[in-house]
Amino acid sequence: MSAQRMKIGCAGLGRMGKRHALNFLERTPRAELVAASSPDPAELEWAKTHLVPFGVTLYQNYDDMLKHEGLEAIVVASATAVHAEQAIKAIEADKHVLCEKPLSTSVEVSQSVVDAANKKPNLKVMCGFSRRFDKSYRDAYNKMQAGSIGAPSVLRSQTCDKLDPSGFFVAYAQFSGGIFVDCSIHDIDLTLWFFGAASKVKSVSAVGITAVEPDLRKHNDRDNAVGLVEFYDGKIAYFYASRMMAAGQEDTTEIIGTKGKLAVNTQPAMNHVNLYDETGIRREIPQTYWDRFEYAFVTEANEFTAAVLDNKPLPLELTAAVQAVRIGAALQESLISNQKIFFDEQGNRTEASRL
Amino acid sequence: MSAQRMKIGCAGLGRMGKRHALNFLERTPRAELVAASSPDPAELEWAKTHLVPFGVTLYQNYDDMLKHEGLEAIVVASATAVHAEQAIKAIEADKHVLCEKPLSTSVEVSQSVVDAANKKPNLKVMCGFSRRFDKSYRDAYNKMQAGSIGAPSVLRSQTCDKLDPSGFFVAYAQFSGGIFVDCSIHDIDLTLWFFGAASKVKSVSAVGITAVEPDLRKHNDRDNAVGLVEFYDGKIAYFYASRMMAAGQEDTTEIIGTKGKLAVNTQPAMNHVNLYDETGIRREIPQTYWDRFEYAFVTEANEFTAAVLDNKPLPLELTAAVQAVRIGAALQESLISNQKIFFDEQGNRTEASRL
Amino acid sequence: MSAQRMKIGCAGLGRMGKRHALNFLERTPRAELVAASSPDPAELEWAKTHLVPFGVTLYQNYDDMLKHEGLEAIVVASATAVHAEQAIKAIEADKHVLCEKPLSTSVEVSQSVVDAANKKPNLKVMCGFSRRFDKSYRDAYNKMQAGSIGAPSVLRSQTCDKLDPSGFFVAYAQFSGGIFVDCSIHDIDLTLWFFGAASKVKSVSAVGITAVEPDLRKHNDRDNAVGLVEFYDGKIAYFYASRMMAAGQEDTTEIIGTKGKLAVNTQPAMNHVNLYDETGIRREIPQTYWDRFEYAFVTEANEFTAAVLDNKPLPLELTAAVQAVRIGAALQESLISNQKIFFDEQGNRTEASRL
Amino acid sequence: MSAQRMKIGCAGLGRMGKRHALNFLERTPRAELVAASSPDPAELEWAKTHLVPFGVTLYQNYDDMLKHEGLEAIVVASATAVHAEQAIKAIEADKHVLCEKPLSTSVEVSQSVVDAANKKPNLKVMCGFSRRFDKSYRDAYNKMQAGSIGAPSVLRSQTCDKLDPSGFFVAYAQFSGGIFVDCSIHDIDLTLWFFGAASKVKSVSAVGITAVEPDLRKHNDRDNAVGLVEFYDGKIAYFYASRMMAAGQEDTTEIIGTKGKLAVNTQPAMNHVNLYDETGIRREIPQTYWDRFEYAFVTEANEFTAAVLDNKPLPLELTAAVQAVRIGAALQESLISNQKIFFDEQGNRTEASRL
Repeated sequence: MSAQRMKIGCAGLGRMGKRHALNFLERTPRAELVAASSPDPAELEWAKTHLVPFGVTLYQNYDDMLKHEGLEAIVVASATAVHAEQAIKAIEADKHVLCEKPLSTSVEVSQSVVDAANKKPNLKVMCGFSRRFDKSYRDAYNKMQAGSIGAPSVLRSQTCDKLDPSGFFVAYAQFSGGIFVDCSIHDIDLTLWFFGAASKVKSVSAVGITAVEPDLRKHNDRDNAVGLVEFYDGKIAYFYASRMMAAGQEDTTEIIGTKGKLAVNTQPAMNHVNLYDETGIRREIPQTYWDRFEYAFVTEANEFTAAVLDNKPLPLELTAAVQAVRIGAALQESLISNQKIFFDEQGNRTEASRL
Repeated sequence: MSAQRMKIGCAGLGRMGKRHALNFLERTPRAELVAASSPDPAELEWAKTHLVPFGVTLYQNYDDMLKHEGLEAIVVASATAVHAEQAIKAIEADKHVLCEKPLSTSVEVSQSVVDAANKKPNLKVMCGFSRRFDKSYRDAYNKMQAGSIGAPSVLRSQTCDKLDPSGFFVAYAQFSGGIFVDCSIHDIDLTLWFFGAASKVKSVSAVGITAVEPDLRKHNDRDNAVGLVEFYDGKIAYFYASRMMAAGQEDTTEIIGTKGKLAVNTQPAMNHVNLYDETGIRREIPQTYWDRFEYAFVTEANEFTAAVLDNKPLPLELTAAVQAVRIGAALQESLISNQKIFFDEQGNRTEASRL
Repeated sequence: MSAQRMKIGCAGLGRMGKRHALNFLERTPRAELVAASSPDPAELEWAKTHLVPFGVTLYQNYDDMLKHEGLEAIVVASATAVHAEQAIKAIEADKHVLCEKPLSTSVEVSQSVVDAANKKPNLKVMCGFSRRFDKSYRDAYNKMQAGSIGAPSVLRSQTCDKLDPSGFFVAYAQFSGGIFVDCSIHDIDLTLWFFGAASKVKSVSAVGITAVEPDLRKHNDRDNAVGLVEFYDGKIAYFYASRMMAAGQEDTTEIIGTKGKLAVNTQPAMNHVNLYDETGIRREIPQTYWDRFEYAFVTEANEFTAAVLDNKPLPLELTAAVQAVRIGAALQESLISNQKIFFDEQGNRTEASRL
Repeated sequence: MSAQRMKIGCAGLGRMGKRHALNFLERTPRAELVAASSPDPAELEWAKTHLVPFGVTLYQNYDDMLKHEGLEAIVVASATAVHAEQAIKAIEADKHVLCEKPLSTSVEVSQSVVDAANKKPNLKVMCGFSRRFDKSYRDAYNKMQAGSIGAPSVLRSQTCDKLDPSGFFVAYAQFSGGIFVDCSIHDIDLTLWFFGAASKVKSVSAVGITAVEPDLRKHNDRDNAVGLVEFYDGKIAYFYASRMMAAGQEDTTEIIGTKGKLAVNTQPAMNHVNLYDETGIRREIPQTYWDRFEYAFVTEANEFTAAVLDNKPLPLELTAAVQAVRIGAALQESLISNQKIFFDEQGNRTEASRL
């Protein structure tokens, strides 16, 4: 291992931006966080305390940061609406890119990032599907690859957030692409991982309700939704997404094969503690996505850095990120139109179902 | 409590018939098994050893058994195809009836049992949805009723059988009504219990595959299927049924409310034993439906008997059994036609979706 | 199977007596409860409602019940203080005996029951160590016998009661023989089962506290106690007994072998329900010994009956019951004297330890 | 937070030394690993690849490292036999010290480290009891402090290693101080944490066996041992240590109070994966102490660093480390002598027990 370190800049210093910045600053030994950008004064103020003392240069303007001397890579952790634009600019400026998911809520815009990346095959461009870096999911994947469950056939996966009583997610729904693009995108990505990136969708159908936040309907969204995806090679995936979990974050996946099943997180737990009292035996569970996947983000940062420094393949293909958005957007459309949607084997919509 | 005992006869002595007969003989103190009928010589032979020494009279012919002196009730545990006919004959002969599920795989035939029962309001006629008598489901129901989870909104339930390598279920599929009518009927009944019997279906959609038994397609059936049911009052239920579980019977239910969730059997276990060895920590799970629900059937027999003897209301309404078949049959149709099916609030099919 | 039934009488109708009586009345098909005795008017009153209508004859006097026409067996479920006397009288009257544990809190008195039984080898005399009939313990035992854990070497077991705020157990301590004889007797019996009845004790030591009920010291007892038992063949057992569990009954056992471990009930649960709410994930556990072992008592009644009717060996040896009391009494003595106690290989006390 | 970093050197580069060195190099942002020492050529060779490229200076001689320009702190991660000597030298050279447990297997030698530290009150000297930094143990401690279990009364704790078929631990036993000093020391430290550092021991007794490695007897050690510790304030702790776990590392603790119980790791799991196959449901568990406590060591390094840089109190008192060795050594003596050992309230041995 050489002592050479990858110089990276962080675009965006909101909730996820702060985390990515600190991960590259403190928990990615082979990377050096040299720059960070944000248009937001409060975020820059935070950075003056937490980043600047450690040698990080701040930029109000993303384009200016791209010109930072010696900068080799960018982590795009800004608002979803500018993910694609910033990623493309970075690629054009010959920077490696780790982009938060999704590339965009639009399939076409997502594809434009892939197109930009394809023109610079020497660059490492990755969309950060954090669960791919989680130890449990990797263990499950490896066990499946080793034949533990025979042929994977049915996948159930859910991304369920703890109810945020502030109702923040209502305003957020305007830009999130909807619950299937925002939450289930992870489950869809897992499906493409476990079933194979070449899996072809035959149909999608979805239903949803607003059990706690009727206002979501203004933004064509729901607070609970279930979606069904049928693939051409005789596989099924079904997803549940929710904004109203009482106990905390419940992200659970089951991969059912012809000879076994792998269950990831069907018994959620925050740690190894159980409290026995007169109400029974109780354990707490992670409250947020970060609580559950904190170390996956650290691994993501380290593996992205290693791929850049050692010029090795990235752990996941950028094209899968577009396919995930395509499926998420179709589910969201089905959710709102209340219609089942069919595709032919080339991925084009068809009117009638092929029986 | 009086020492008076209800005289009951058992129709059918196949796998379920034997169990019902022995339950009424040995584990239902207030009932007396006085008769049993079967056209099958092997079944009658079994009964000569296990029932006759304890005072049970055998009949080759069901109609003859109905005339047994003093007979007050019948448990119909024969092949599904004759459930309705035998139940109706028993009702007409003024016997109380406990009928194995389903009343019929046909909605119309199921309804004819209800019609017959309605003419004899003094009789107790019950369809044996065994999970309603399971301690865990009852505990969950009581907790929901006590407000533990707020308003129930989403229900996930699965009935998944261990793979039977003999492939028996292929031949059986010809008469079972399909995987949604045979397996998911329990999950549907639970839905009607937890969401309320008056819940009105807005749409159903389903997909399925044949991962292990392609021959099932001959009988318009699948070995794995997922179904989505949308209700008019803003609730969703989704079901998974499978014939290929590796570890055993996996019947799991989650009821998600606005303030909490109740999970039934998300951590299956046959007993309280865990084996630690070089492969990790392992526990076994029930192999069959009977392993899991044996005591629910005992409770069912005892509560049916008590309702008859004490002239108290039955624990579940017969009409729900028809509604369960209606939903199961619609899901099965959707599974085969690959179309989403819509209903208006009166339960009639509609062409277009109501948005 | 013949329809012949064993005629049994129940001595004592207190908490355990009622349960044994009803088990033989309602859940032991091959037995017929023909008689019951109690000197207590309230208990007899209860029996008039619950037993007499089903043909049970009541006796105020135990000796009178022994003369009941056709009586073949007695279940002794009275106060511990009269277990041995009633068991011996029954044996002398040529009745088979199922005696609640312990035979006596005194080793000598316990042995006198064995002596009486030895004179009537045709009689079935069993001490009811209920855990031997529990499905989980039997599964663990069978797995151990099948070699799953190599050579069993260390056994940890606990019998821990839910705190009874009435403090009933303080008065009870006067006659119970102390916490090791009353509670740990089950764990000791399990040790003799899993390690073998011929296991020879080398030393015992114990400590205890009164965390919630200092008054127990009046009766030379404690509310929490830990005991260590060393055997001559290089095995160890250690026990914990408590009267102050908050959540419910916690009876847990681990058998550690050279190649694996069997854990029984290290994850207690009343049923299959988990409640998810803002405090986390919660399950309830059995509140009492009966909640946990109800079906073991039913199996015990049925297997005792079958051994009598079919003249087959009993599932456990009566001598083990004496050895269990011997070990329990030594632990209790060590608890109170605060001294370690040593034995030679013939079971005699020795002053110094053999190193 | 300032960008100032604490310059630290690592003494010893064996199994634990490598881990501590890398933790300070890569996962302790506020520390700078500037030096490392080892007399072992192979260890130095490893360091040339893994440490030198990142600016770490290597020393064959510990005393030379102490003179490293600007060095502020030492992590002592060498063989136990030199812990105390190296710690004292570092203190005398005015370095802050984080010393691996135990300070020494001898109580007197351990105390000499405390004495040396007392002369330099400006220095931070800490013994690294890693479990104090584990999230689960901290959560349990905080819950206890918040009153969740009433008054803590009984503590059960075990440190059980996976069987190492190489038998390495036999040779290791010569220097380890024995199983109670090497393994149970953690459980003892937890006891002093949860019960309070001022807890006074009244008696200890222990028994042990050699189930898999009879050769351990040559070094006065055992492969399985159980110990009982009684405290003067009416509390009990009991410990189990083993070298022969089949499934992996099993470090479990229960703290039982008058109103509840906290259980830490009674359901061990390596991650969130469960595999369902024809043998049942299976999960893997951590294989080593490191697998289980990796992040506790990272937290330890970071908190030690913060205490030094910010001149804040250390999270644990050094004196507790001596008391832990004292109890561990007494248990080991009891294990070998087979005698119960008594102490008066001043900590002196007494012949007879105080009743």
